Amino acid sequence: MVPGAPGTETEPPRTEPEMLAALSRIGEERYHSLHPFHRLLHDGELDHGQVQAWALNRYYYQCSIPRKDLTLMARIADVDLRLEWRSRVIDHEGDMDGSGGLARYLQLCERLGLDLDYVRSCAGLLPGTRFAVDAYIAFVRERSVLEAIASSLTELYAPAIHRERIAGLSRHYPWADDYALAYFKKRINQARRDVDFGRAWVLRNARTRAEQDAVLDAVRFKTDVLWAQLDALHSAYVEPKRIPPGCFAPQPQDQEHAA
Amino acid sequence: MVPGAPGTETEPPRTEPEMLAALSRIGEERYHSLHPFHRLLHDGELDHGQVQAWALNRYYYQCSIPRKDLTLMARIADVDLRLEWRSRVIDHEGDMDGSGGLARYLQLCERLGLDLDYVRSCAGLLPGTRFAVDAYIAFVRERSVLEAIASSLTELYAPAIHRERIAGLSRHYPWADDYALAYFKKRINQARRDVDFGRAWVLRNARTRAEQDAVLDAVRFKTDVLWAQLDALHSAYVEPKRIPPGCFAPQPQDQEHAA
Repeated sequence: MVPGAPGTETEPPRTEPEMLAALSRIGEERYHSLHPFHRLLHDGELDHGQVQAWALNRYYYQCSIPRKDLTLMARIADVDLRLEWRSRVIDHEGDMDGSGGLARYLQLCERLGLDLDYVRSCAGLLPGTRFAVDAYIAFVRERSVLEAIASSLTELYAPAIHRERIAGLSRHYPWADDYALAYFKKRINQARRDVDFGRAWVLRNARTRAEQDAVLDAVRFKTDVLWAQLDALHSAYVEPKRIPPGCFAPQPQDQEHAA
Repeated sequence: MVPGAPGTETEPPRTEPEMLAALSRIGEERYHSLHPFHRLLHDGELDHGQVQAWALNRYYYQCSIPRKDLTLMARIADVDLRLEWRSRVIDHEGDMDGSGGLARYLQLCERLGLDLDYVRSCAGLLPGTRFAVDAYIAFVRERSVLEAIASSLTELYAPAIHRERIAGLSRHYPWADDYALAYFKKRINQARRDVDFGRAWVLRNARTRAEQDAVLDAVRFKTDVLWAQLDALHSAYVEPKRIPPGCFAPQPQDQEHAA
Protein backbone atom coordinates (compact mmCIF):
# COMPACT_ATOMS: atom_id res chain seq x y z
CA MET A 1 0.00 0.00 0.00
CA VAL A 2 1.35 3.43 -0.88
CA PRO A 3 1.76 5.65 2.20
CA GLY A 4 -0.86 8.36 2.02
CA ALA A 5 -2.79 6.61 -0.77
CA PRO A 6 -6.49 7.52 -0.94
CA GLY A 7 -8.44 6.02 1.92
CA THR A 8 -5.45 5.11 4.06
CA GLU A 9 -4.78 8.45 5.71
CA THR A 10 -7.93 8.29 7.80
CA GLU A 11 -7.35 4.76 9.10
CA PRO A 12 -6.25 4.53 12.73
CA PRO A 13 -2.72 3.34 13.52
CA ARG A 14 -2.28 -0.41 13.89
CA THR A 15 -1.99 -1.83 17.40
CA GLU A 16 1.30 -3.50 18.30
CA PRO A 17 -0.09 -7.03 17.79
CA GLU A 18 -1.43 -5.92 14.39
CA MET A 19 1.99 -4.58 13.39
CA LEU A 20 3.67 -7.80 14.51
CA ALA A 21 1.14 -9.83 12.54
CA ALA A 22 1.68 -7.67 9.44
CA LEU A 23 5.44 -8.14 9.75
CA SER A 24 5.04 -11.90 10.10
CA ARG A 25 2.81 -12.04 7.05
CA ILE A 26 5.42 -10.32 4.88
CA GLY A 27 7.93 -12.95 5.95
CA GLU A 28 5.53 -15.79 5.18
CA GLU A 29 4.77 -14.39 1.73
CA ARG A 30 8.03 -12.85 0.51
CA TYR A 31 11.13 -13.91 2.50
CA HIS A 32 13.82 -15.59 0.43
CA SER A 33 13.56 -18.78 2.49
CA LEU A 34 10.68 -19.49 0.07
CA HIS A 35 12.93 -19.25 -3.01
CA PRO A 36 13.59 -22.57 -4.81
CA PHE A 37 17.32 -21.83 -4.90
CA HIS A 38 17.46 -22.12 -1.12
CA ARG A 39 15.55 -25.38 -1.20
CA LEU A 40 18.06 -26.79 -3.70
CA LEU A 41 20.98 -25.52 -1.61
CA HIS A 42 19.70 -26.87 1.68
CA ASP A 43 18.60 -30.20 0.22
CA GLY A 44 22.05 -30.89 -1.23
CA GLU A 45 20.78 -30.64 -4.81
CA LEU A 46 23.44 -28.20 -6.05
CA ASP A 47 26.75 -29.18 -7.59
CA HIS A 48 29.99 -27.73 -6.25
CA GLY A 49 30.18 -24.95 -8.84
CA GLN A 50 26.66 -23.79 -8.02
CA VAL A 51 27.48 -23.62 -4.31
CA GLN A 52 30.65 -21.68 -5.16
CA ALA A 53 28.59 -19.22 -7.21
CA TRP A 54 26.21 -18.75 -4.28
CA ALA A 55 29.03 -18.15 -1.78
CA LEU A 56 30.90 -15.81 -4.11
CA ASN A 57 27.85 -13.69 -4.87
CA ARG A 58 26.66 -13.65 -1.28
CA TYR A 59 30.08 -12.28 -0.31
CA TYR A 60 29.15 -8.96 -1.88
CA TYR A 61 26.05 -8.76 0.30
CA GLN A 62 28.13 -9.79 3.30
CA CYS A 63 30.84 -7.18 2.80
CA SER A 64 28.30 -4.45 2.00
CA ILE A 65 26.32 -4.83 5.23
CA PRO A 66 28.80 -2.86 7.38
CA ARG A 67 28.86 -0.14 4.70
CA LYS A 68 25.07 -0.12 4.86
CA ASP A 69 25.16 0.17 8.66
CA LEU A 70 27.75 2.96 8.53
CA THR A 71 25.61 4.78 5.95
CA LEU A 72 22.75 4.61 8.42
CA MET A 73 24.86 5.61 11.43
CA ALA A 74 26.15 8.65 9.56
CA ARG A 75 22.54 9.87 9.35
CA ILE A 76 21.58 9.30 12.99
CA ALA A 77 21.74 12.36 15.24
CA ASP A 78 20.98 10.47 18.48
CA VAL A 79 24.30 9.26 19.90
CA ASP A 80 22.71 6.49 21.96
CA LEU A 81 21.00 5.01 18.92
CA ARG A 82 24.22 5.31 16.94
CA LEU A 83 26.18 3.51 19.65
CA GLU A 84 23.59 0.74 19.69
CA TRP A 85 24.13 0.29 15.97
CA ARG A 86 27.91 0.24 16.25
CA SER A 87 27.96 -3.33 17.54
CA ARG A 88 26.60 -4.51 14.19
CA VAL A 89 29.57 -3.09 12.35
CA ILE A 90 31.95 -4.64 14.88
CA ASP A 91 30.15 -7.98 14.58
CA HIS A 92 30.81 -7.98 10.84
CA GLU A 93 34.19 -6.34 10.57
CA GLY A 94 35.70 -7.53 13.81
CA ASP A 95 37.19 -5.54 16.64
CA MET A 96 40.89 -4.67 16.77
CA ASP A 97 41.67 -8.38 16.36
CA GLY A 98 39.99 -8.45 12.94
CA SER A 99 38.07 -11.66 13.60
CA GLY A 100 34.58 -10.55 12.60
CA GLY A 101 31.77 -12.11 10.61
CA LEU A 102 33.38 -11.25 7.30
CA ALA A 103 36.52 -13.23 8.17
CA ARG A 104 34.33 -16.15 9.25
CA TYR A 105 32.36 -15.87 6.03
CA LEU A 106 35.58 -16.14 4.01
CA GLN A 107 36.26 -19.46 5.79
CA LEU A 108 33.24 -20.78 3.89
CA CYS A 109 34.71 -19.53 0.60
CA GLU A 110 38.07 -21.08 1.48
CA ARG A 111 36.52 -24.48 2.21
CA LEU A 112 34.73 -24.28 -1.13
CA GLY A 113 38.09 -23.95 -2.88
CA LEU A 114 37.51 -20.41 -4.10
CA ASP A 115 40.46 -18.07 -4.61
CA LEU A 116 39.91 -15.57 -1.80
CA ASP A 117 41.53 -12.70 -3.70
CA TYR A 118 39.11 -13.36 -6.54
CA VAL A 119 36.19 -13.43 -4.11
CA ARG A 120 37.29 -10.16 -2.47
CA SER A 121 37.81 -8.48 -5.85
CA CYS A 122 34.12 -9.07 -6.72
CA ALA A 123 35.30 -9.39 -10.33
CA GLY A 124 33.09 -12.40 -11.04
CA LEU A 125 29.98 -11.00 -9.38
CA LEU A 126 26.62 -11.15 -11.16
CA PRO A 127 25.43 -7.64 -12.08
CA GLY A 128 22.05 -8.62 -10.60
CA THR A 129 23.72 -9.17 -7.22
CA ARG A 130 25.61 -5.89 -7.35
CA PHE A 131 22.57 -3.86 -8.39
CA ALA A 132 20.34 -5.38 -5.68
CA VAL A 133 22.86 -4.86 -2.88
CA ASP A 134 23.69 -1.34 -4.01
CA ALA A 135 19.96 -0.58 -4.06
CA TYR A 136 19.84 -1.56 -0.39
CA ILE A 137 22.63 0.87 0.50
CA ALA A 138 20.96 3.61 -1.56
CA PHE A 139 17.66 2.98 0.24
CA VAL A 140 19.32 3.42 3.61
CA ARG A 141 20.99 6.62 2.42
CA GLU A 142 17.93 8.18 0.80
CA ARG A 143 14.85 7.19 2.80
CA SER A 144 13.85 8.29 6.28
CA VAL A 145 15.83 6.90 9.23
CA LEU A 146 12.66 5.07 10.26
CA GLU A 147 12.47 3.30 6.89
CA ALA A 148 16.21 2.65 6.90
CA ILE A 149 16.05 0.93 10.29
CA ALA A 150 12.85 -0.89 9.33
CA SER A 151 14.60 -2.39 6.30
CA SER A 152 16.81 -4.37 8.70
CA LEU A 153 13.77 -6.16 10.14
CA THR A 154 14.04 -9.08 7.73
CA GLU A 155 16.35 -10.29 10.51
CA LEU A 156 13.09 -11.31 12.19
CA TYR A 157 12.90 -14.16 9.71
CA ALA A 158 16.62 -15.01 9.63
CA PRO A 159 17.19 -17.41 12.57
CA ALA A 160 14.92 -20.05 11.04
CA ILE A 161 16.73 -20.01 7.68
CA HIS A 162 20.15 -20.01 9.38
CA ARG A 163 19.19 -23.11 11.37
CA GLU A 164 17.80 -24.79 8.25
CA ARG A 165 20.96 -23.88 6.32
CA ILE A 166 23.35 -25.22 8.96
CA ALA A 167 21.42 -28.49 9.21
CA GLY A 168 21.01 -28.89 5.45
CA LEU A 169 24.57 -28.04 4.46
CA SER A 170 26.04 -30.23 7.24
CA ARG A 171 23.97 -33.18 6.12
CA HIS A 172 24.57 -32.95 2.38
CA TYR A 173 27.99 -31.46 1.63
CA PRO A 174 31.36 -32.94 2.66
CA TRP A 175 33.04 -29.53 3.06
CA ALA A 176 30.39 -28.22 5.48
CA ASP A 177 32.24 -28.52 8.80
CA ASP A 178 32.32 -26.14 11.77
CA TYR A 179 35.07 -24.07 10.13
CA ALA A 180 33.03 -23.54 6.96
CA LEU A 181 29.79 -22.79 8.80
CA ALA A 182 31.26 -20.63 11.58
CA TYR A 183 29.66 -17.46 10.21
CA PHE A 184 26.13 -18.85 10.20
CA LYS A 185 26.50 -20.53 13.60
CA LYS A 186 27.63 -17.33 15.26
CA ARG A 187 25.15 -15.14 13.40
CA ILE A 188 22.04 -16.85 14.83
CA ASN A 189 22.46 -15.29 18.26
CA GLN A 190 23.72 -11.94 16.95
CA ALA A 191 20.71 -11.60 14.66
CA ARG A 192 18.33 -12.38 17.52
CA ARG A 193 19.82 -9.63 19.70
CA ASP A 194 19.93 -7.11 16.82
CA VAL A 195 16.36 -7.71 15.78
CA ASP A 196 14.99 -7.45 19.32
CA PHE A 197 16.36 -3.93 19.45
CA GLY A 198 15.35 -2.98 15.89
CA ARG A 199 11.81 -4.26 16.23
CA ALA A 200 11.21 -2.47 19.53
CA TRP A 201 12.65 0.78 18.13
CA VAL A 202 10.53 0.63 14.98
CA LEU A 203 7.32 -0.19 16.86
CA ARG A 204 7.96 2.72 19.21
CA ASN A 205 8.75 5.21 16.44
CA ALA A 206 6.17 4.30 13.78
CA ARG A 207 3.20 6.03 15.37
CA THR A 208 0.95 7.12 12.52
CA ARG A 209 -0.70 4.83 10.03
CA ALA A 210 1.42 6.37 7.24
CA GLU A 211 4.62 5.70 9.18
CA GLN A 212 3.54 2.13 9.80
CA ASP A 213 2.77 1.70 6.09
CA ALA A 214 6.24 3.06 5.28
CA VAL A 215 7.77 0.53 7.69
CA LEU A 216 5.97 -2.37 6.04
CA ASP A 217 6.97 -1.11 2.58
CA ALA A 218 10.59 -0.91 3.72
CA VAL A 219 10.49 -4.54 4.84
CA ARG A 220 8.87 -5.52 1.52
CA PHE A 221 11.61 -3.63 -0.32
CA LYS A 222 14.24 -5.57 1.61
CA THR A 223 12.61 -8.90 0.76
CA ASP A 224 12.84 -7.80 -2.89
CA VAL A 225 16.58 -7.15 -2.44
CA LEU A 226 17.09 -10.67 -1.09
CA TRP A 227 14.78 -12.37 -3.60
CA ALA A 228 16.36 -10.62 -6.61
CA GLN A 229 19.79 -11.94 -5.61
CA LEU A 230 18.53 -15.53 -5.68
CA ASP A 231 16.66 -14.95 -8.94
CA ALA A 232 19.92 -13.75 -10.52
CA LEU A 233 21.81 -16.77 -9.14
CA HIS A 234 19.14 -19.22 -10.23
CA SER A 235 19.00 -17.74 -13.72
CA ALA A 236 22.79 -17.83 -14.17
CA TYR A 237 23.63 -21.18 -12.57
CA VAL A 238 20.47 -23.34 -12.38
CA GLU A 239 17.80 -22.47 -14.93
CA PRO A 240 18.09 -21.43 -17.71
CA LYS A 241 21.73 -21.59 -16.55
CA ARG A 242 22.92 -18.68 -18.63
CA ILE A 243 25.94 -16.94 -17.10
CA PRO A 244 26.01 -13.21 -18.00
CA PRO A 245 29.11 -11.99 -19.89
CA GLY A 246 32.22 -11.80 -17.71
CA CYS A 247 30.80 -13.47 -14.58
CA PHE A 248 32.15 -16.37 -12.52
CA ALA A 249 32.09 -19.63 -14.49
CA PRO A 250 32.51 -22.84 -12.46
CA GLN A 251 35.24 -25.28 -13.52
CA PRO A 252 33.93 -28.28 -15.49
CA GLN A 253 34.98 -30.73 -12.77
CA ASP A 254 32.94 -28.75 -10.24
CA GLN A 255 29.75 -29.12 -12.23
CA GLU A 256 29.13 -32.66 -11.08
CA HIS A 257 27.08 -33.30 -7.99
CA ALA A 258 29.43 -33.00 -5.03
CA ALA A 259 27.41 -34.71 -2.31
CA MET B 1 40.66 -4.12 -16.80
CA VAL B 2 40.87 -2.03 -13.64
CA PRO B 3 42.08 1.52 -14.36
CA GLY B 4 45.55 1.85 -12.92
CA ALA B 5 45.96 -1.91 -12.40
CA PRO B 6 49.57 -3.13 -12.37
CA GLY B 7 51.11 -3.04 -15.80
CA THR B 8 48.50 -0.84 -17.44
CA GLU B 9 49.72 2.57 -16.32
CA THR B 10 52.78 2.41 -18.53
CA GLU B 11 50.95 1.41 -21.71
CA PRO B 12 50.56 4.19 -24.28
CA PRO B 13 47.09 5.58 -24.99
CA ARG B 14 45.10 3.78 -27.69
CA THR B 15 44.86 5.40 -31.10
CA GLU B 16 41.40 6.48 -32.24
CA PRO B 17 40.95 3.42 -34.49
CA GLU B 18 41.99 1.21 -31.56
CA MET B 19 39.41 2.86 -29.31
CA LEU B 20 36.71 2.44 -31.94
CA ALA B 21 37.65 -1.21 -32.35
CA ALA B 22 37.57 -1.76 -28.58
CA LEU B 23 34.11 -0.16 -28.41
CA SER B 24 32.86 -2.34 -31.25
CA ARG B 25 34.18 -5.46 -29.57
CA ILE B 26 32.27 -4.73 -26.36
CA GLY B 27 29.09 -4.46 -28.41
CA GLU B 28 29.78 -7.73 -30.20
CA GLU B 29 30.43 -9.54 -26.94
CA ARG B 30 28.05 -7.99 -24.43
CA TYR B 31 25.23 -5.92 -25.97
CA HIS B 32 21.73 -7.11 -25.10
CA SER B 33 20.92 -7.74 -28.76
CA LEU B 34 22.67 -11.07 -28.04
CA HIS B 35 20.24 -11.98 -25.24
CA PRO B 36 17.85 -14.87 -26.04
CA PHE B 37 14.89 -12.82 -24.78
CA HIS B 38 15.35 -10.40 -27.67
CA ARG B 39 15.54 -13.25 -30.16
CA LEU B 40 12.25 -14.64 -28.82
CA LEU B 41 10.65 -11.19 -28.92
CA HIS B 42 11.78 -10.35 -32.44
CA ASP B 43 10.98 -13.80 -33.81
CA GLY B 44 7.39 -13.66 -32.58
CA GLU B 45 7.94 -16.46 -30.08
CA LEU B 46 6.49 -14.65 -27.06
CA ASP B 47 2.85 -14.79 -25.98
CA HIS B 48 0.92 -11.59 -25.37
CA GLY B 49 1.50 -11.59 -21.61
CA GLN B 50 5.26 -11.92 -22.09
CA VAL B 51 5.31 -8.97 -24.48
CA GLN B 52 3.24 -6.96 -21.99
CA ALA B 53 5.76 -7.79 -19.26
CA TRP B 54 8.60 -6.61 -21.50
CA ALA B 55 6.86 -3.32 -22.37
CA LEU B 56 5.84 -2.64 -18.78
CA ASN B 57 9.31 -3.26 -17.38
CA ARG B 58 11.04 -1.36 -20.17
CA TYR B 59 8.83 1.62 -19.31
CA TYR B 60 10.83 2.13 -16.13
CA TYR B 61 14.04 2.33 -18.16
CA GLN B 62 12.32 4.66 -20.61
CA CYS B 63 11.03 7.08 -18.00
CA SER B 64 14.32 7.03 -16.08
CA ILE B 65 16.48 8.09 -19.03
CA PRO B 66 15.59 11.80 -18.80
CA ARG B 67 16.25 11.66 -15.04
CA LYS B 68 19.61 10.08 -15.85
CA ASP B 69 20.36 12.84 -18.38
CA LEU B 70 19.31 15.57 -15.94
CA THR B 71 21.52 13.99 -13.27
CA LEU B 72 24.41 14.26 -15.70
CA MET B 73 23.57 17.80 -16.80
CA ALA B 74 23.45 18.94 -13.18
CA ARG B 75 27.11 17.91 -12.89
CA ILE B 76 28.39 19.58 -16.08
CA ALA B 77 30.03 22.97 -15.63
CA ASP B 78 30.45 23.67 -19.36
CA VAL B 79 27.26 25.40 -20.57
CA ASP B 80 27.80 24.40 -24.20
CA LEU B 81 28.07 20.73 -23.32
CA ARG B 82 25.02 21.03 -21.08
CA LEU B 83 23.00 22.63 -23.88
CA GLU B 84 24.04 19.85 -26.23
CA TRP B 85 22.68 17.34 -23.76
CA ARG B 86 19.40 19.18 -23.29
CA SER B 87 18.00 17.94 -26.59
CA ARG B 88 18.05 14.39 -25.22
CA VAL B 89 15.73 15.34 -22.40
CA ILE B 90 13.43 17.16 -24.80
CA ASP B 91 13.46 14.17 -27.15
CA HIS B 92 12.19 11.96 -24.34
CA GLU B 93 9.92 14.26 -22.41
CA GLY B 94 8.66 16.39 -25.27
CA ASP B 95 8.76 20.13 -25.70
CA MET B 96 5.93 22.37 -24.51
CA ASP B 97 3.51 20.23 -26.53
CA GLY B 98 4.33 17.16 -24.43
CA SER B 99 4.69 14.84 -27.42
CA GLY B 100 8.07 13.29 -26.61
CA GLY B 101 9.46 9.78 -26.74
CA LEU B 102 7.83 8.79 -23.48
CA ALA B 103 4.36 9.59 -24.84
CA ARG B 104 5.17 7.60 -27.98
CA TYR B 105 6.42 4.74 -25.83
CA LEU B 106 3.10 4.66 -23.97
CA GLN B 107 1.36 4.18 -27.33
CA LEU B 108 3.05 0.77 -27.42
CA CYS B 109 1.72 -0.03 -23.94
CA GLU B 110 -1.74 1.15 -24.97
CA ARG B 111 -1.78 -1.08 -28.06
CA LEU B 112 -0.73 -4.00 -25.86
CA GLY B 113 -3.86 -3.47 -23.75
CA LEU B 114 -1.99 -2.44 -20.62
CA ASP B 115 -3.63 -0.08 -18.14
CA LEU B 116 -1.51 3.05 -18.58
CA ASP B 117 -2.00 4.22 -15.00
CA TYR B 118 -0.71 0.84 -13.85
CA VAL B 119 2.28 1.13 -16.19
CA ARG B 120 3.07 4.66 -14.98
CA SER B 121 2.74 3.62 -11.32
CA CYS B 122 5.55 1.05 -11.79
CA ALA B 123 3.69 -1.03 -9.19
CA GLY B 124 4.15 -4.29 -11.11
CA LEU B 125 7.81 -3.73 -11.95
CA LEU B 126 10.35 -6.50 -11.40
CA PRO B 127 12.79 -5.56 -8.61
CA GLY B 128 15.58 -6.66 -10.96
CA THR B 129 14.50 -3.98 -13.45
CA ARG B 130 14.30 -1.27 -10.81
CA PHE B 131 17.67 -2.12 -9.28
CA ALA B 132 19.45 -2.19 -12.66
CA VAL B 133 17.99 1.10 -13.86
CA ASP B 134 18.62 2.82 -10.53
CA ALA B 135 22.22 1.56 -10.70
CA TYR B 136 22.56 3.39 -14.01
CA ILE B 137 21.37 6.68 -12.51
CA ALA B 138 23.68 6.19 -9.51
CA PHE B 139 26.62 5.54 -11.84
CA VAL B 140 25.99 8.81 -13.67
CA ARG B 141 25.73 10.66 -10.36
CA GLU B 142 28.81 9.14 -8.72
CA ARG B 143 31.43 8.51 -11.41
CA SER B 144 33.45 11.06 -13.37
CA VAL B 145 31.64 13.08 -16.04
CA LEU B 146 33.79 11.26 -18.61
CA GLU B 147 32.54 7.87 -17.39
CA ALA B 148 28.97 9.16 -17.14
CA ILE B 149 28.98 10.33 -20.75
CA ALA B 150 30.79 7.17 -21.88
CA SER B 151 28.03 5.04 -20.37
CA SER B 152 25.65 6.44 -23.01
CA LEU B 153 27.78 4.99 -25.81
CA THR B 154 25.79 1.76 -25.97
CA GLU B 155 23.75 3.92 -28.36
CA LEU B 156 26.46 2.98 -30.85
CA TYR B 157 24.90 -0.45 -31.01
CA ALA B 158 21.24 0.64 -30.82
CA PRO B 159 20.23 1.44 -34.43
CA ALA B 160 20.74 -2.18 -35.52
CA ILE B 161 18.56 -3.58 -32.73
CA HIS B 162 15.88 -0.93 -33.32
CA ARG B 163 15.70 -1.87 -37.00
CA GLU B 164 15.59 -5.57 -36.14
CA ARG B 165 12.87 -4.92 -33.55
CA ILE B 166 10.68 -2.89 -35.89
CA ALA B 167 10.95 -5.52 -38.62
CA GLY B 168 10.43 -8.46 -36.26
CA LEU B 169 7.51 -7.03 -34.30
CA SER B 170 5.76 -5.82 -37.49
CA ARG B 171 6.04 -9.25 -39.05
CA HIS B 172 4.93 -11.34 -36.09
CA TYR B 173 2.47 -9.43 -33.90
CA PRO B 174 -0.95 -8.12 -35.00
CA TRP B 175 -0.83 -5.08 -32.69
CA ALA B 176 2.53 -3.86 -34.06
CA ASP B 177 1.39 -1.00 -36.29
CA ASP B 178 2.93 2.46 -36.83
CA TYR B 179 1.14 3.81 -33.77
CA ALA B 180 2.58 1.10 -31.51
CA LEU B 181 6.10 1.33 -32.94
CA ALA B 182 6.28 5.13 -33.23
CA TYR B 183 8.84 5.38 -30.43
CA PHE B 184 11.32 2.97 -32.01
CA LYS B 185 10.87 4.42 -35.51
CA LYS B 186 11.61 7.94 -34.35
CA ARG B 187 14.42 6.89 -32.02
CA ILE B 188 16.63 5.43 -34.77
CA ASN B 189 17.59 8.84 -36.12
CA GLN B 190 17.75 10.52 -32.71
CA ALA B 191 20.12 7.86 -31.40
CA ARG B 192 22.38 8.24 -34.42
CA ARG B 193 22.71 12.00 -33.88
CA ASP B 194 23.20 11.63 -30.11
CA VAL B 195 25.86 8.99 -30.43
CA ASP B 196 27.84 10.90 -33.06
CA PHE B 197 28.24 13.69 -30.54
CA GLY B 198 28.88 11.43 -27.54
CA ARG B 199 31.48 9.32 -29.31
CA ALA B 200 33.41 12.33 -30.59
CA TRP B 201 33.35 13.97 -27.15
CA VAL B 202 34.55 10.84 -25.38
CA LEU B 203 37.34 10.16 -27.88
CA ARG B 204 38.51 13.77 -27.51
CA ASN B 205 38.42 13.74 -23.69
CA ALA B 206 39.78 10.28 -22.87
CA ARG B 207 43.45 11.05 -23.42
CA THR B 208 45.38 8.79 -21.06
CA ARG B 209 45.33 5.02 -21.10
CA ALA B 210 43.65 5.03 -17.66
CA GLU B 211 40.90 7.35 -18.91
CA GLN B 212 40.38 5.15 -21.94
CA ASP B 213 40.16 2.08 -19.69
CA ALA B 214 37.58 3.88 -17.56
CA VAL B 215 35.57 4.67 -20.70
CA LEU B 216 35.54 1.04 -21.78
CA ASP B 217 34.60 -0.08 -18.27
CA ALA B 218 31.72 2.41 -18.28
CA VAL B 219 30.40 0.95 -21.52
CA ARG B 220 30.76 -2.57 -20.09
CA PHE B 221 28.86 -1.47 -16.98
CA LYS B 222 26.05 -0.15 -19.18
CA THR B 223 25.84 -3.43 -21.10
CA ASP B 224 25.45 -5.12 -17.69
CA VAL B 225 22.55 -2.77 -16.88
CA LEU B 226 20.79 -3.74 -20.12
CA TRP B 227 21.58 -7.45 -19.87
CA ALA B 228 20.42 -7.71 -16.24
CA GLN B 229 17.02 -6.31 -17.20
CA LEU B 230 16.51 -9.05 -19.78
CA ASP B 231 17.79 -11.72 -17.40
CA ALA B 232 15.18 -10.61 -14.85
CA LEU B 233 12.43 -10.64 -17.51
CA HIS B 234 13.47 -14.02 -18.86
CA SER B 235 13.61 -15.53 -15.37
CA ALA B 236 10.17 -14.19 -14.41
CA TYR B 237 8.24 -14.75 -17.64
CA VAL B 238 10.07 -17.31 -19.82
CA GLU B 239 12.32 -19.69 -17.90
CA PRO B 240 12.02 -20.81 -15.15
CA LYS B 241 8.97 -18.52 -15.41
CA ARG B 242 8.83 -17.63 -11.74
CA ILE B 243 7.27 -14.23 -11.11
CA PRO B 244 8.68 -12.58 -7.97
CA PRO B 245 6.18 -11.73 -5.21
CA GLY B 246 3.94 -8.77 -6.07
CA CYS B 247 5.02 -8.32 -9.71
CA PHE B 248 2.93 -8.06 -12.87
CA ALA B 249 1.16 -11.33 -13.64
CA PRO B 250 -0.26 -11.72 -17.17
CA GLN B 251 -3.93 -12.66 -17.52
CA PRO B 252 -4.49 -16.35 -18.34
CA GLN B 253 -6.01 -15.52 -21.74
CA ASP B 254 -2.86 -13.56 -22.62
CA GLN B 255 -0.60 -16.53 -22.03
CA GLU B 256 -1.42 -18.15 -25.34
CA HIS B 257 0.67 -17.40 -28.37
CA ALA B 258 -0.72 -14.19 -29.86
CA ALA B 259 0.80 -14.29 -33.34
